[in-house]
Amino acid sequence: MYKPTNKLVFVDDTRQRIELYSPTKMPEAGSFLWNKQMMVQFNCRGYAVGQFMQPEPSKYAYAPNLEAKTFMQPEHAYYANHPGRFFYIKDEDTGEVFSAPFAPAKMSLDYFCFSAGQHDISWHIEALNISVKITVSLSESDAIEMWELTVSNLDSKARNVSIYPYFTVGYMSWMNQSADFLPELNAIVATCISPYQKVEEYFERTNLKDKTYLIADTKPTSWCCNQKVFEGNSDVSFPEGIKAETLEQINSLYEVPAAVMQYQESFKAKQSKSYRFLFGPAEHNQQIADIRDKYFGTSNLFEQEKHNYEQYIKQSSGPINIESGDTVFDQFVNYWLPRQVFYHGDVNRLTTDPQTRNYLQDNLGMSYISPQTARQAFITALSQQNQTGEMPDGILIHPDASLKYINQVPHTDHCVWLPICIQAYLNETNDISLLDELVPFADNKSTQTIKQHIELALDWLVASCDERGLSYIAQGDWCDPMNMVGYKGKGVSTWLTLASAYAINTWVDVCADYQIDINLKYSFFAGFLNQAVNKHCWEGQWYSRGISDDNISFGVGDDTEGRIYLNPQSWAILSGAVSTENKAKLLAQIELQLNTPFGTMMLAPSYTKMRENVGRLTQKFPGTAENGSIYNHAAIFYAYSLFKIGEAEKAFSVMRKMLPDDNFIQRGQLPNFIPNYYRGAFYQHPRTAGRSSQLFNTGTVSWFYRCVIEGIAGLVGNKGDLLIKPQLPNQWSKLNVIRAFNGATFNVEILKTKKVSQQTVHINGNYEASNRIANITAGKTYQVQVLLPLPPELIIIMGVSGCGKSTIGRQISKQCSYKYFEADDFHSEEAIELMAQGIPLTDKQREPWIDEMCTCLETEFIKKNDCVLAYSGLRAEHREKFRQLGFNTRFVFLDVDEQQLQVRLKNRPSHFFKEELLASQFSALQRPNDESDVFVVDANHSQASVLGQIVSYIKNGEA
Amino acid sequence: MYKPTNKLVFVDDTRQRIELYSPTKMPEAGSFLWNKQMMVQFNCRGYAVGQFMQPEPSKYAYAPNLEAKTFMQPEHAYYANHPGRFFYIKDEDTGEVFSAPFAPAKMSLDYFCFSAGQHDISWHIEALNISVKITVSLSESDAIEMWELTVSNLDSKARNVSIYPYFTVGYMSWMNQSADFLPELNAIVATCISPYQKVEEYFERTNLKDKTYLIADTKPTSWCCNQKVFEGNSDVSFPEGIKAETLEQINSLYEVPAAVMQYQESFKAKQSKSYRFLFGPAEHNQQIADIRDKYFGTSNLFEQEKHNYEQYIKQSSGPINIESGDTVFDQFVNYWLPRQVFYHGDVNRLTTDPQTRNYLQDNLGMSYISPQTARQAFITALSQQNQTGEMPDGILIHPDASLKYINQVPHTDHCVWLPICIQAYLNETNDISLLDELVPFADNKSTQTIKQHIELALDWLVASCDERGLSYIAQGDWCDPMNMVGYKGKGVSTWLTLASAYAINTWVDVCADYQIDINLKYSFFAGFLNQAVNKHCWEGQWYSRGISDDNISFGVGDDTEGRIYLNPQSWAILSGAVSTENKAKLLAQIELQLNTPFGTMMLAPSYTKMRENVGRLTQKFPGTAENGSIYNHAAIFYAYSLFKIGEAEKAFSVMRKMLPDDNFIQRGQLPNFIPNYYRGAFYQHPRTAGRSSQLFNTGTVSWFYRCVIEGIAGLVGNKGDLLIKPQLPNQWSKLNVIRAFNGATFNVEILKTKKVSQQTVHINGNYEASNRIANITAGKTYQVQVLLPLPPELIIIMGVSGCGKSTIGRQISKQCSYKYFEADDFHSEEAIELMAQGIPLTDKQREPWIDEMCTCLETEFIKKNDCVLAYSGLRAEHREKFRQLGFNTRFVFLDVDEQQLQVRLKNRPSHFFKEELLASQFSALQRPNDESDVFVVDANHSQASVLGQIVSYIKNGEA
Repeated sequence: MYKPTNKLVFVDDTRQRIELYSPTKMPEAGSFLWNKQMMVQFNCRGYAVGQFMQPEPSKYAYAPNLEAKTFMQPEHAYYANHPGRFFYIKDEDTGEVFSAPFAPAKMSLDYFCFSAGQHDISWHIEALNISVKITVSLSESDAIEMWELTVSNLDSKARNVSIYPYFTVGYMSWMNQSADFLPELNAIVATCISPYQKVEEYFERTNLKDKTYLIADTKPTSWCCNQKVFEGNSDVSFPEGIKAETLEQINSLYEVPAAVMQYQESFKAKQSKSYRFLFGPAEHNQQIADIRDKYFGTSNLFEQEKHNYEQYIKQSSGPINIESGDTVFDQFVNYWLPRQVFYHGDVNRLTTDPQTRNYLQDNLGMSYISPQTARQAFITALSQQNQTGEMPDGILIHPDASLKYINQVPHTDHCVWLPICIQAYLNETNDISLLDELVPFADNKSTQTIKQHIELALDWLVASCDERGLSYIAQGDWCDPMNMVGYKGKGVSTWLTLASAYAINTWVDVCADYQIDINLKYSFFAGFLNQAVNKHCWEGQWYSRGISDDNISFGVGDDTEGRIYLNPQSWAILSGAVSTENKAKLLAQIELQLNTPFGTMMLAPSYTKMRENVGRLTQKFPGTAENGSIYNHAAIFYAYSLFKIGEAEKAFSVMRKMLPDDNFIQRGQLPNFIPNYYRGAFYQHPRTAGRSSQLFNTGTVSWFYRCVIEGIAGLVGNKGDLLIKPQLPNQWSKLNVIRAFNGATFNVEILKTKKVSQQTVHINGNYEASNRIANITAGKTYQVQVLLPLPPELIIIMGVSGCGKSTIGRQISKQCSYKYFEADDFHSEEAIELMAQGIPLTDKQREPWIDEMCTCLETEFIKKNDCVLAYSGLRAEHREKFRQLGFNTRFVFLDVDEQQLQVRLKNRPSHFFKEELLASQFSALQRPNDESDVFVVDANHSQASVLGQIVSYIKNGEA
Repeated sequence: MYKPTNKLVFVDDTRQRIELYSPTKMPEAGSFLWNKQMMVQFNCRGYAVGQFMQPEPSKYAYAPNLEAKTFMQPEHAYYANHPGRFFYIKDEDTGEVFSAPFAPAKMSLDYFCFSAGQHDISWHIEALNISVKITVSLSESDAIEMWELTVSNLDSKARNVSIYPYFTVGYMSWMNQSADFLPELNAIVATCISPYQKVEEYFERTNLKDKTYLIADTKPTSWCCNQKVFEGNSDVSFPEGIKAETLEQINSLYEVPAAVMQYQESFKAKQSKSYRFLFGPAEHNQQIADIRDKYFGTSNLFEQEKHNYEQYIKQSSGPINIESGDTVFDQFVNYWLPRQVFYHGDVNRLTTDPQTRNYLQDNLGMSYISPQTARQAFITALSQQNQTGEMPDGILIHPDASLKYINQVPHTDHCVWLPICIQAYLNETNDISLLDELVPFADNKSTQTIKQHIELALDWLVASCDERGLSYIAQGDWCDPMNMVGYKGKGVSTWLTLASAYAINTWVDVCADYQIDINLKYSFFAGFLNQAVNKHCWEGQWYSRGISDDNISFGVGDDTEGRIYLNPQSWAILSGAVSTENKAKLLAQIELQLNTPFGTMMLAPSYTKMRENVGRLTQKFPGTAENGSIYNHAAIFYAYSLFKIGEAEKAFSVMRKMLPDDNFIQRGQLPNFIPNYYRGAFYQHPRTAGRSSQLFNTGTVSWFYRCVIEGIAGLVGNKGDLLIKPQLPNQWSKLNVIRAFNGATFNVEILKTKKVSQQTVHINGNYEASNRIANITAGKTYQVQVLLPLPPELIIIMGVSGCGKSTIGRQISKQCSYKYFEADDFHSEEAIELMAQGIPLTDKQREPWIDEMCTCLETEFIKKNDCVLAYSGLRAEHREKFRQLGFNTRFVFLDVDEQQLQVRLKNRPSHFFKEELLASQFSALQRPNDESDVFVVDANHSQASVLGQIVSYIKNGEA
């Protein structure tokens, strides 16, 4: 009974496992397994949702619906009795019962551990002095769940115990459903006919796997195949079937099937017994017999198949391994992240018609893990391009596939992803031959090169603009449910215009990097698009999200809902559209309006009612999905753009918040995958904000991997060389990286030190001025040391007038030996005069004052002096300016109560600041709600306590 | 605490209620309520499935699926916690809890009564010395469930009790779902956006009622809107919400909503408290506020609305009321049958595109209840006919409707129902003006008369035959899933050919009856079709069901599955195709192969695997739906055809078996509706045979009503006159009928008596030779007496040689004073010789022997002598011949064990029958498994016991 800590969740780095020690505190927490044919998401209580492919996604444990073969539903609900894989344990001597892992009996347990591994999931439960260990893995090649169960009598006396695996099958079909125990297979087999009505569907369905089996390795004492008979009049927590001495052997005849077996056992003292089960779909009984033979029969390949599956998952290892000291982050990056990237790229999210943008971005990720897969995917995608350059909404990757669901709605962004994703592939592989591959079109068999295909796509993007130079959005861009901005054919997307510019610029860069001829028009095009956005979409503090068919801009300051969207801001940075001045403005607004403790929201405030010139997005529940959740795919674009401008601290903060850590209960998820979103609407619905969607299909992970490689570690491929430009967050003083590239291995040690004033690289002990490792020899291991300058510290003590900034600032200066500055000393005489008259300063009037301070601090930076500044810092935009100075900048916000402060100010008559100004200060204050470098202190407490917290924060990074 | 008998089910005639006294023995038993906008099926345990119209069927208590807005699913399954309307009761002093009516706590109760009324459903439960009375009714005009709850402290001391209504809402939508308690409405309101993806769907859905509310008349102590929070970690049988002193007031934010309220009450000794609730869908909160005002506010119309609903259901009263002494049958015919007919006809099964055949037949039934409705329906249907005469697969009865599901699959029978259903309408109303109504076509605005429309339909039927004169089936006829017989364009339907002939003959009859000119070709056409069937489809003992595209006949003797289908046999009788000789043959085969204790199966044996030249039908589970269930719609066609040939006894037996009575537990249904089917596959799956589908949408009821009126009571309208030709089953010696017709009332007393040798009618005391009441005066009441001849009895003692026929026969003859005959006495000398040599007789050799006996018995019939005959009766076809003699014929089958009999035969050397013949007798024996007039006696017992049983049966109709 191994429980290493008193924590709720333990991330075991050695065994690469994550463990949860309560079945009640995070009821939705779980993990998922998949192979090429199937995927199952298990939660810690025993519920499970599985799908397999034939070729469309299909269920083998069913919910009672006719047409539920659609995508997985976020935060899906379970019933008390479905769908699940449960094991009841009955003490035959006392009649006591519990179920493992937890549901459906939900008895209080003596011990509980749910353990998510890379290639298996296991539970260890103890109750009634019985230990139950459960492990589930998948077969590598078949759609089979492989279960192992070990039950141990922990008592020192002999006991009689019955063990009941209960695998729910559910309502399979209204046409035909039944089940029976087949002794010759030692299996329960449930059979159905998938419902249909049109005769042509019959022929399409002749090979469906309409059977579900539970095969056991050990002959059961008894069995039952009928859910109603098994549960009886009792509750599912203690079914009638279990109250009886042995299960009633009843089949299912057009009744809801279930798979229940009973093992009536005599245990000696301390004895253990083990069982194995296989659960999955099949077409006919011979298949089931073959499976039984293969796993339990003469071949007895159960262990071998388990091993094969482990090997399969090991294919997900990526080209980078990091050691930062942040265990959750390191384990995620080293194991779970490439696993999730590989899941997307290897099985294409278990669909036959992935959305084009998903397919391309998933293969951006695969460029790092399986470049051959990515290469083929780019070719497949481009072979379905139209001659006009337009990309289809989905890529058909199975001969019987057709475009379904959202892929029947026209979206306009798919072309954008081609140069972006292919750039990552080229940088990682230097496989320039890809661009010369000849590929046909969907509507023309004659071939052109990939380069030509990409340029046709870019031409299509440029052609799909209105007279202003803004890109038409049709019924959606990257944002699917933004379907009514442009459905009449006029509406345009700010984001798509910027994304087109970025895609074109990326292509220009690729051509420059790899010395490929390129028409000069492309540089012009990108500039033209950026210019159009700046002319029509800059709204003073940030960019709008678009302009609707009826010529209404949205995502703008006048909007009470959906006032600011994240994507146009991030992509204006990527595309180069934004000016330095405007960049500070929009970064400030993101901090102010979109940032939360759980990550960056995609828009805010979330819509609470339909807006007909935006569309379906506004009908989603506030804070979910595209309606203002912390939509991680959008957030990671933001992080990527931040690395592009050297905002490592902000970028890391965005990424780090994608992993649950000290807020597990609110997240409800383990750090074993990044979900497509966490609930947003942080100010509207704080009770649910931060809760995981539990859905692990997301374009986020490819970009997260790219951000780790290109951003944090900064080890970017380029023409077969490795560029070195790491960007470490403030709290990391060092980072060790192992990077595989171009057949060689690089052991990279990155260290921050005051000894250098700019990045300094040594390769195998030799100084390398270029920050580039060229002439790499495959098979060789390189020792690389990167020294990064450790910038001086700037601590800004902020807060409204009278909160105690100066006093605290001086104390800190003394205790930490930092140079002290007082913002008030930088005011012009006019400003002091105004304030003395009780007239508050405008933002404009504050500007020269800020500039004065910055100029002074720039001088100190050059001198490498650590500084502390007492400065109100009321406006987010101004705070942003101080972050640009190069210091390791941190803010301490002295948070005080307005009433309490008034009392304090009355006792300070000498100060030029009038107490009447106080209200204006509070109204001017843009609270730093979740700026990651702001430490908020409740300054209503005693000065000593406040000071102690701050000094501790400055020294240790925490109070 | 009223419980009138010790029975499980009590049919209370005075209060027109049916009551069930156990929640466990018939867990699926329930009842249904509907109004023009909605329908809800409640089962006795508190589960409920409801739908309302907007205009398509919609849910307001949801299952977790994306597209479940389809038809109701037979024998649907429930989850432990959904969907339901539950009331938890907690004794605050002891902490004990139970739930009413039963689920989800499922505690053992002191008293339980579920009571299905015409316009409400109620429960009375007692537990913990608390009485709970629950009543649910509907509003007449709104989609609202109206609930009343009365809780009484039965104790003589004061007690503290909490009462929790728990109405599950379920997973509403993946786009948006939430719920909250709104104090100003005193209601829990759950809200969602119905999922969609295409922009055009948004505009179609702007007025959807996406809110579900639970309004209370009394302010609750507390509430909870969040299913997961309410149920907590406990089981739904004792949710955590109930363990707490008061409910945690938590809303639902994109979480599964629920509607739970709590009333924390102090009860004095013997005190009662009452509460009212409204549950239903709404578009917006103002609507909910209006509803609250209307029912509980100043208007306070709750009682009034309940009364209005009662009045609405009373519109379902029909033109006939019977009193036979069979309470279940009488109550069904007088109240529940017209109620079910009215449900179909008034709300069209709550669909917007009823299948054409359903729409027409439902209005056959409405011809008796609301002729104006039927008239308009026939006009509506014909206005959607094509100019070619072809009828569409569904009739659009709402401006926004479209053809969905099965209506997108081409069926060929719809034209058939026009003359058949319109004949019933004309007979009941004499409204010949209908035929002159001018009606347009779907594809042509110019109009033609209804008569012309009907004849176009008949012309289309005749044109849609192959060169043999057999009707093409395309992808189905009446039998929807028989979709692969003719999908290649060649396959034909025996049934449809016969149905076409019957439809044409019906039209010829209508024209003759009402003196309408008709082209002589129609009589010829009908004959031509019948002739084609006799030539190509008579298979020796019965008619085939059809001939497939690949020219294979099916429903024939060589088929091991689907060997015989009921419909072609019934309709060969109706169409007049079958000869007298063949009629006896096919009736015998129906008795042998299709009859069961639960009714007549539609085909046998049920298919167990796909047959590709029959189709989807063969994939349904054996014994369900069209694959060999007791499909009541087909069975009632059979009954109707039996009345046409005077087979009253058989016909009544078929009808009577549609009502559960002494086999409630196996049926699982109350006799308050006829389901679409009972499980068949009687020989294949005896465990489930007879189980109700619980689905009350069925064309059966219109025909059942017609059979009561035209067959049993035999009071048929004709040109405004009333024809009198009742056909009473053997066990009824009299029947009182009140018949409304042509504005007059007829009090009819039908009596069987030996005093008359043919039907004798007196009207108001005057003898009426014509059996017709003409010149009816509206408003007048007529006293009608009908005397029917009581035929002599014929008791046939049957069984294999040596079973004791002769001994028993002689004893009966003595005890009952019946004339005795011995079959052996009629054998020719040759036959006796053969048998003495141990050579069994062939069927052909038995024929002259049978004829001899029949000739003899015909003479006795004329003399009105009661007879008893000792006769082996091994062959079903031969038994059929004896039934045709006119006697009140009954069989007694002496069932013996083969081994035991061999011993007995060895002790009888004098008899000419060789014991070697015994095996051949057993193999020749076609057991009368469920011929309704065969009394089976276990003849292995002592002769005295056997004789006693038989005499009791002869005298009382039961042993």
